[in-house]
Amino acid sequence: MRSGGRVKVPHDLISFLKDEDYFLIATHINPDGDALGSALALAQALESSGKTVIVYDRDPVPEYYRFLPGQQNIIHSFRDIQSSSMNLVLLDCNSPDRTGMGDVRFKASCVIDHHETENNFGQIKWVEPHAAATGMLIFYLLRASGVEITREVALNLYTAIVVDTGAFRYSNTSAEVLRVSADLVEAGASPAFVSNSLYEMWSDRRFSLLIMALSTLEIRESVAFINVTSRMFQETETGPEDTENFPSFPRMMQRINVSVFLRQIDSIKWKVSLRSKGDINVAGVAMLFEGGGHKNAAGCTIKGDLKTAKETLFEAIAQIINRDS
Amino acid sequence: MRSGGRVKVPHDLISFLKDEDYFLIATHINPDGDALGSALALAQALESSGKTVIVYDRDPVPEYYRFLPGQQNIIHSFRDIQSSSMNLVLLDCNSPDRTGMGDVRFKASCVIDHHETENNFGQIKWVEPHAAATGMLIFYLLRASGVEITREVALNLYTAIVVDTGAFRYSNTSAEVLRVSADLVEAGASPAFVSNSLYEMWSDRRFSLLIMALSTLEIRESVAFINVTSRMFQETETGPEDTENFPSFPRMMQRINVSVFLRQIDSIKWKVSLRSKGDINVAGVAMLFEGGGHKNAAGCTIKGDLKTAKETLFEAIAQIINRDS
Repeated sequence: MRSGGRVKVPHDLISFLKDEDYFLIATHINPDGDALGSALALAQALESSGKTVIVYDRDPVPEYYRFLPGQQNIIHSFRDIQSSSMNLVLLDCNSPDRTGMGDVRFKASCVIDHHETENNFGQIKWVEPHAAATGMLIFYLLRASGVEITREVALNLYTAIVVDTGAFRYSNTSAEVLRVSADLVEAGASPAFVSNSLYEMWSDRRFSLLIMALSTLEIRESVAFINVTSRMFQETETGPEDTENFPSFPRMMQRINVSVFLRQIDSIKWKVSLRSKGDINVAGVAMLFEGGGHKNAAGCTIKGDLKTAKETLFEAIAQIINRDS
Repeated sequence: MRSGGRVKVPHDLISFLKDEDYFLIATHINPDGDALGSALALAQALESSGKTVIVYDRDPVPEYYRFLPGQQNIIHSFRDIQSSSMNLVLLDCNSPDRTGMGDVRFKASCVIDHHETENNFGQIKWVEPHAAATGMLIFYLLRASGVEITREVALNLYTAIVVDTGAFRYSNTSAEVLRVSADLVEAGASPAFVSNSLYEMWSDRRFSLLIMALSTLEIRESVAFINVTSRMFQETETGPEDTENFPSFPRMMQRINVSVFLRQIDSIKWKVSLRSKGDINVAGVAMLFEGGGHKNAAGCTIKGDLKTAKETLFEAIAQIINRDS
């Protein structure tokens, strides 16, 4: 384990995890690979130190993340949980609101996240916006705590990093990210197994839905729009979780700087996913519609018919492009 | 530079490159990113040590590799070259036959390759079949020679490794591959720039052609068929070179073991590309139609109307699947 050293793990966080015995690790709704992999890895590491740990996510684990070791133990409701005697570890988000857990009381709480913090929640806060993934932070934490990185932990953390770096393609892929990943491969994570599980396990239905979505392609200047309607979901017998990654496809085109994916929620409401290249900050676009995210990947919800929604989004994006590029 | 140490660079190779002054680096026809990146990196390193170096490849540099620094200096013919006073460095192949250079005489010659050697060519031979890429070997060579890894060299080598590991997805992605890649990023290679250049430079037309091709999807058992007709090329104003990578898309589906891509040559002739997963050997299928290739990627030509061609291929593939799986 030669990686890192640049990020400092807070001593009070290490002590907190060492001194306490009961933990509930919660992460955000619609969990991605970084949220799930980080939560499962930390749970496994704490359990190996004799702690009692529960992992909570409100939403079911998407099918393409069911290869993650330990995912079957994640709970999705607080029924029968004595939370007041447990310590909350909030992962890959910084507010209980993002977990959808409602009003739950804990003994104490800490936050480990790589998104910008917007609030004061948590007695202990470790937020590193420059970390490529929460999985990187969990790796540093475990190493600083002297916990062994088992094959299961390595697989969960490697997946977390792969997902949040776009399989080592995004600009957050630093030398450090590759070195930590090397350490995780050495500890037993298999890159071929992870990428096969993430990228080559699509159902036929999901692939059909992708073809339908791509067929809606519309390009305005350097902005690409694709969409999925409720009717397409019905025809292909698929659901929202099957659209993971769809927004990335139009990015393949050289002249596309922003890719917009609209997924129909109801007759006048669309879930919008934005992806951008380079310095174009689509989080700024998402925020205009009360959404959020990262510079190159953000999301929001928009009302209106498809044509109006696209029009509104295009105008907002065009402004950001003119400002950022 | 902390990577590696497991692979031993032959002393006579280091001496050869140190003692001689004139080099011609040649690589195989239809060059890929590993061949080009390795050749350019070695050339740049030798030039920085005051040597005179020419890089030769019979074929033009494919458009998607034109971002590689130095590629514009590659020569494609031996006209005006005084080869008899130059030393040949054969890269990413082990026989002059693979370079298409014909009968050319050199002062001396060496081979640096990661394919299995099939012949005795070269006074000095360094062949490491377990290396993920020839780019890895060049990295070790430069480090062992004490040559500085400049930003240009790093970019060429990083690309070589990315291409031959399927962007860190194939089973040859070892901890060592990731560590060397980390060193190259530290030396100035940008992962986002490389993957953007390799994977996100499609023309709109090519993307339209992909959508059309995917819309022809037909699945029989675990075999997927997609095709591109002459009419589609006309409609999208594209050509055969725009179909690079198309055969891989249906592999995304879990139940697909073999992906077949048919590209129309004329009214009754199709170029067939086969891709398989795991142990299914599609080179065996291609050979039945006088084609060839590797276990998981092969090609051939077939005559007949589309329906008959698919039918014939399906029968041949079904036999191989039953035998191999």
